[in-house]
This record gives sequence, structure tokens and C-alpha cells, in this order.
Amino acid sequence: MWKLVVKTCEYAVRGEIVILAQKLQEELQAKPGSHPFDEIIYCNIGNPQSLGQQPITFFREVLALCDHPAILDRSESQALFSADSIERAWKILDQIPGGATGAYSHSQGIKGLRDTIAAGIEARDGFPADPNDIFLTDGASPAVHSMMTLLIRSEKDGILCPIPQYPLYSASIALHGGTLVPYYLDEATGWGLEIAELRKQLEDAKAKGVTVRALVVINPGNPTGQVLAEENQRDIVNFCKQEGLVLLADEVYQENVYVPEKKFNSFKKVSRSMGYGEEDISLVSFQSVSKGYHGECGKRGGYMEVTGFTSDIREQIYKMASVNLCSNISGQILASLVMSPPKVGDESYESYCAERDGILSSLARRAKTLEDALNSLEGITCNKAEGAMYLFPRVRLPEKAIKAAEAAKCAPDAFYCRRLLNATGIVVVPGSGFGQVPGTWHFRCTILPQEDKIPAIVSHLTDFHKSFMDEYRG
Amino acid sequence: MWKLVVKTCEYAVRGEIVILAQKLQEELQAKPGSHPFDEIIYCNIGNPQSLGQQPITFFREVLALCDHPAILDRSESQALFSADSIERAWKILDQIPGGATGAYSHSQGIKGLRDTIAAGIEARDGFPADPNDIFLTDGASPAVHSMMTLLIRSEKDGILCPIPQYPLYSASIALHGGTLVPYYLDEATGWGLEIAELRKQLEDAKAKGVTVRALVVINPGNPTGQVLAEENQRDIVNFCKQEGLVLLADEVYQENVYVPEKKFNSFKKVSRSMGYGEEDISLVSFQSVSKGYHGECGKRGGYMEVTGFTSDIREQIYKMASVNLCSNISGQILASLVMSPPKVGDESYESYCAERDGILSSLARRAKTLEDALNSLEGITCNKAEGAMYLFPRVRLPEKAIKAAEAAKCAPDAFYCRRLLNATGIVVVPGSGFGQVPGTWHFRCTILPQEDKIPAIVSHLTDFHKSFMDEYRG
Repeated sequence: MWKLVVKTCEYAVRGEIVILAQKLQEELQAKPGSHPFDEIIYCNIGNPQSLGQQPITFFREVLALCDHPAILDRSESQALFSADSIERAWKILDQIPGGATGAYSHSQGIKGLRDTIAAGIEARDGFPADPNDIFLTDGASPAVHSMMTLLIRSEKDGILCPIPQYPLYSASIALHGGTLVPYYLDEATGWGLEIAELRKQLEDAKAKGVTVRALVVINPGNPTGQVLAEENQRDIVNFCKQEGLVLLADEVYQENVYVPEKKFNSFKKVSRSMGYGEEDISLVSFQSVSKGYHGECGKRGGYMEVTGFTSDIREQIYKMASVNLCSNISGQILASLVMSPPKVGDESYESYCAERDGILSSLARRAKTLEDALNSLEGITCNKAEGAMYLFPRVRLPEKAIKAAEAAKCAPDAFYCRRLLNATGIVVVPGSGFGQVPGTWHFRCTILPQEDKIPAIVSHLTDFHKSFMDEYRG
Repeated sequence: MWKLVVKTCEYAVRGEIVILAQKLQEELQAKPGSHPFDEIIYCNIGNPQSLGQQPITFFREVLALCDHPAILDRSESQALFSADSIERAWKILDQIPGGATGAYSHSQGIKGLRDTIAAGIEARDGFPADPNDIFLTDGASPAVHSMMTLLIRSEKDGILCPIPQYPLYSASIALHGGTLVPYYLDEATGWGLEIAELRKQLEDAKAKGVTVRALVVINPGNPTGQVLAEENQRDIVNFCKQEGLVLLADEVYQENVYVPEKKFNSFKKVSRSMGYGEEDISLVSFQSVSKGYHGECGKRGGYMEVTGFTSDIREQIYKMASVNLCSNISGQILASLVMSPPKVGDESYESYCAERDGILSSLARRAKTLEDALNSLEGITCNKAEGAMYLFPRVRLPEKAIKAAEAAKCAPDAFYCRRLLNATGIVVVPGSGFGQVPGTWHFRCTILPQEDKIPAIVSHLTDFHKSFMDEYRG
């Protein structure tokens, strides 16, 4: 018999619907025309480059040069690479002991790259950042696992998590044997995060004998897409300070904000601007190269900035990092590039800005088009994607559809998503994979298909929904 | 209070002596001449490129091209890259859906790369390998952690581990709350692995109420350097089959064999050649891009080949892989290159062979020189490094040295290593970090410093040891 906890650890974004999609894709390849669509459109996961988004040229130039430094001083390279990518590669190799990109680094990551990242955080926040607080990781997921390993001692330790939430959190808490303490985001106020709800759930957990250790906040939200107001963030910081909770701030979508009235503020900036320092609040900020405008998921890079812990606990975090030796160096380099992209005057600056702004403005248009389309459908309401990469519409399913789902031994939202996939090839994830208020049904759909595909997606989604409702409407 | 288990998880190869070394290095930089040596020589960790080993050109060419495919069809690239590296990069991009090296892959890794790896295993072993049995990982360490997560349900679950062992195993077992069941390797017979010892320790563990789930074998050995004879491997396979143990085969040093009379055999090959199939034995083989002749530690690539498990357990392993989404794509590509290097007729073939053989023959010479030097010292005996990257000499310390260590509140081997570092700048790891027969003292020293540095290392080590013995000899 194997460890049971893994059985309770579900990862919906790679779950049942995705396995079905892969099967349909194989059938389509083996027998074109075997389904009522030509291709599978994966809207299940925030994986921009899998849907054709191109990488940022400057980033890839620097990575290629660091992989094969032997070509750095060859004259042919000047025709192939921008001058500032060559200069940056030299600078990075200078920061790596012996220029050895194939060596294990310091367990926290290469010091020079952490210097660059800390400078990037300072420039973003207007408050100091210490390179010794930075732990470079193979993406945000392993960073979250490390913190859960340290925080959870037994099932009596609880972690406050938003519902809906990205299933990394539920899976990681289950894997480490802790208790997920849910707090509900308020769909009616654009997925608002209410302190009263946090307090209620904290008290309920305490009454059940659970020691709540930390609060997870995802900002911008996943799957919910809201961007928190600074006022709200201050209340959250005060709540954590009062209750002695570690604030785990998932800030991987910090570059993905699509509405002019909202702005990303890091929790570190907010707490420092309240006058709170190291003594006042324990804060971990997670960042990743997988998201933003660059979307470099396959590179597995990221960092956590760890502040407000005693040296004793810092040592534990360092030990956790040591056990896997170090994160991959290309990911480390990329994390430094993301936090320090080309500047005015650099040869790449203009093309870099054009690539970045092109991607972000297109994502904003795609989010708006899909949101409007969803809101026009019978029984569907969809909050705005102010940020991140997802829409999370609510679907009011007819009683008859719910009965049909029961008969198919399937959650109603999963039933809807499976029917959508079979009819259109569009892959979305049932809300039950993220958590939702009992009795409500949702799905998560990324805004990532390339812009020229959006009209067809809207039209197929609309046609499917109409015929589904016609079939099951009372 | 934080999780205590992390306090018991020690990682000696990055431990106290290394922290002291870093301090001395900073002092040397700040004030040259402040110590009786000019540089710190890191012999504490198997990190070849940190000591000046150059990467294999073909591997780096392919990685650079895959990072920045935009230059693949530029004419300048033909001057900068070999024809077969360009061809291989095209082939790999073809294997990646959409050619997107920046996208998350399948949780087990890119299917086409797993096909290549499976073909490489078949060519190595002469027995079939299934790409669906391959799980690509960010190096061997996270792969071992995954398996420990699945195998260990409570402290009543035990894992048989060699002593001495690489501390990844003790750390991982501690982190996941299990029990390490030690079996001792026999130093007198060249670190022999005796079935009688395995059986004795298994029975002892059972008597204490521990359920032994798995046996870890490191071949070639780390820190011990022995290469197992095929006969011995057959006995180990039979033992696991009889006792229903999962065989965790750490085979990351499979390319590092230095003596003509020994040959690496994978446990998969051995068990298949005994006629055992999927039904007979559960086997996980760990491989890494960090070791071998390539030593690409910073790339964090590797895989595990998982055979002989029920579909139920396979699903659990898949779920574990899904939780971190996928391993980094550069590491995946490199793992495929390592298992499928240039072949006769390829443009790079000769230079590739020259680089590979140059590194391996030099490592063999370095191992022999250091082994001979150690064996010439008073009270030191050192088994041959038949394989891997380390020597693990036994040091018979005088009583007076042991007392001095006690007075310094320090294990005698750590005392010796610290004195060695302070006198010579050479960093080795005390045997206590790996485990040793109580009352015996060892240290682990890599064979990785560049060959031109070996004479000076031998001379400094010899001088230090003589003066240490003069100081403490009765």
C-alpha cells in the first residue's frame, strides 16, 4: 500500500478533462474528421507559448549566449545577436563564479543574479530589498512546496486559502498532511476578499483545534482575475500581523494587469509603506518567469523573497533549499532578466517594448472579448479579468442538466465542460477543481489562445451553450 | 514553532566546513595573504564545472540553438555551430509541440525526448525500454524526493540505505518522516555490499516494528566509489524480489568507471537478463545530467525509469509529477542528448569523443594519483575509486587528536577536516556527514580539481597530514 495522501491530492488543471482532450487529439490525428472540430484548443492552463505566443527576443538571445559562451566573441555573433544581449551575457557570466553556467550554484542562487533581482524589486517598490532574502527556485510551485513543508507539522496545522484557488495550494497542503482552511472570495463584489470572512474562518478553525499558520493570497487572482485594492491589502497585512500569520503572497501575475483603474502593489511595498518592518510581519512573495508578458513556463524559473523571519527559521528555509542543491541556472538567469529588462538607450529597448506591449494589450483585448461573449449567454455571468490569465464564469445550469450529470456520475460543471470539449474541442477546467460556493457552478478558461482564434472560439462556445441550454432547459 | 524534522535533516556536502570555506574565501579576497594559501580548493561536492571542467561543445551548441531557434536558418549560424548540432536542434524542435521550448510540457516530459531516452537505454542494456516509463526531472534529487514522498507513510516505514551514503537519502527520509534502516558497506572488501548484512538489518528493523519499503543502492558508489559486480547485483535483485522491496537504483555515475576490470550494468539489465519482468520486481533507476563526463550540474536535468509497478501506483507517481507541472525543458533536452550523443559519421563525432575521453581518462589519472598519495600517508588507507567522483579514505586519528576534537566540541573527523582547510584551503567533507562504522573516521574528497592542480594538492595534503600527526602523535 502506498501513501494515501497522494490520493486526495488532485490537480484539476492537468486532470480528467485534459486526459480526455489528449485522447481526442490522438483520434483527430489518426482519423481527421472524426470529431466536429479540427483541433483541440487548450484553455485549461496558463501556458502561453504552447498556444503560439512568441518568447521575448532579448531574453532568448541572452540565454543562448550564456548556454554557449564560446560564440560570444565571434564576429558572426554580432550579426545574430543584439549588442545589449552580448553585453548582458558577458555581465552575467562575470557574476557566475568561473563563468560556469553548468555548475551548481549557491543554494539560494547565484549571488550576482540575486543582486540584480533585489535591485529590480527596489525599483518596483521604492523600498529596499536584500539579495540575501531572495531564494531562486525552479518556478513558484517548488517554492510553495518548500514553505508548506516547513509550515505544516501535522493535520492540526491549517493554511488559510482562498476559494476558488489555484490547486497548487490544495495539492501541496494535502501532500504535506495539513488542513486547508478555506475563505470564500465574494463573486458578487468582483471576487472581493473580505476581512470579516477571514476572521470568521480563522475562528471556526481555532474552535476545531486547528492552528492556523499562514494566509495564502493570490494577487492578481487565479482563477478569479481580480486585482486587490491597496486599501484591502493594508487590511490583510494588519490581519496577518494581529493574528501572527505568515503571509504567503502569490504575486506571479504582477505584470498581468489589464484595466487602467487598477495597479499591482506588492504586499512587501504595502507593508513597508504602513511602516511595518522585519519585526512586524513574516512575508513570502512568490514570483515566476512562467507568467507575465514573457510566459516562459518551460524554463522553470522563479524566486521567493523571504522577509520577517528569525535567523533560526531562515536557517531552516536555507536547509530546504540545500536539499535540492540549487535551481536550474537558465531559470535563474531568466529570473534576473525579467526583473531587469532592457532600458532606454539599449539597442533592444524599442523592440523589447513593442513585444511586451503587443502581448499585454492583446491579452487585454482577448480578456474583454471573451468576458463580453460569456456575459451575453443565457445563465452565465462573468466577472472582469482585471489581471492574471483567466476568466472564471458562473454557469447557472438547468435542473435537467444537473440530473443528467448525476446520471453520468459526474459533477454538473465537469459534465458541462466535457460536453463543451466533445462539441467544440475547447478545453476548460470545471470550477470544482478550484473550489466554489456549494451549489454554484463555474469553469476556468484562459485568455491565451492567439487573437485570430478568438472569434471562432466565441462562436463555437456560443453555439454550444445555446444548444446545451435548448437540450436541458426545463 | 516550525517543523522539527527539518532540524534533523543535515546536508554535509553543503554544511559547516563549506560555510567556513566561504568565509575564508571572502577574507582572502578582502586581504590577500591573510591565510597560508592563495585559493580555496573545493573538493566537497561533485560539481566538475565549478573547478574548470569545460562543457561538451555539441551539447551546448544544441541547447543554445533550442533557446533561440530564430538563428537556426541564418547563414552566420553555419560558421558558429556544427552541422549536426543544427540538425539535432531542428529534430528536437520538431519533437516539441509547436517547437515551444518555453511551454510547460507533459508532466513526464516531452514525449519525443522520452522516445530518444528510451532508445538510449535499449542501446545501453540490450533490453526494451518504454518511453512511458520515463519521468524527466530537475536532476536526480527531486526524483528521489518524489519516490520518498510516495513510499513513506509514517515513521514506521523504513528505507534500507547504504552506510556510508550520499546525504540526499538521509535528508529526504528525514524530511518525509520515515526511518532510515542502515546497512554497512564493508570497507575491508573495497566497500562490498553483503546480502547477509542486508538480511540482518531487514530482520532487525522488522523486529522493531518497522516496515521496510525499499532498498537504496548507489552504483557506482557515492561516497565510496565501488562498482558492483554483476553477480552481486543479481543477489541484490533476488533479495528485493523475495522481500518485496522496491529497488531504488541510483545510477547517476554510470558513465564514471575508471578501471578496466569493472563495467557498469544497470539493475534493469541485470534483472531482465535474469528473466525477471514487470511482475517480478519494482525498480526505479535514477539518472542525471549532472554527473558522467559532462557534469552539467547547473542544468538540473535527469530522469527516472520506473518499471514493475501497478497502474494504480503509476498513477500516483504521475500525480506527484503533475504537482510541479514539468521539469525544465533545457534539462529535458540535455538528458536526451546525454542518452543519444553524436554517432560515427556526425560532424561532431570526433571532437565529441576527444572531449569525453579526455575528461574520463584525466579523471582516472587524478583518482589514481590522489589514491596513491593518500595511501602513502601514516594511518590513512584508501580504497580505489573504481567509479563515481570521490575518494573516501579512512584516517586513524591519534588519541590526542580525538581528545583535542572533544575539547573543541567537534567530531574528530570534522576537527581534522577543519584543520586541513585552515592550513591548505582544501575543502573535504567529514565522514560523519555520510555515516561510517562507529569509531572509524573518514573524509570524502572529490577527484575533480583540474589535473595541473593535483601535484600541489598532494603536496599540501601530505605536508599538512605529517605536521598534524607530528602534533598529535602519542
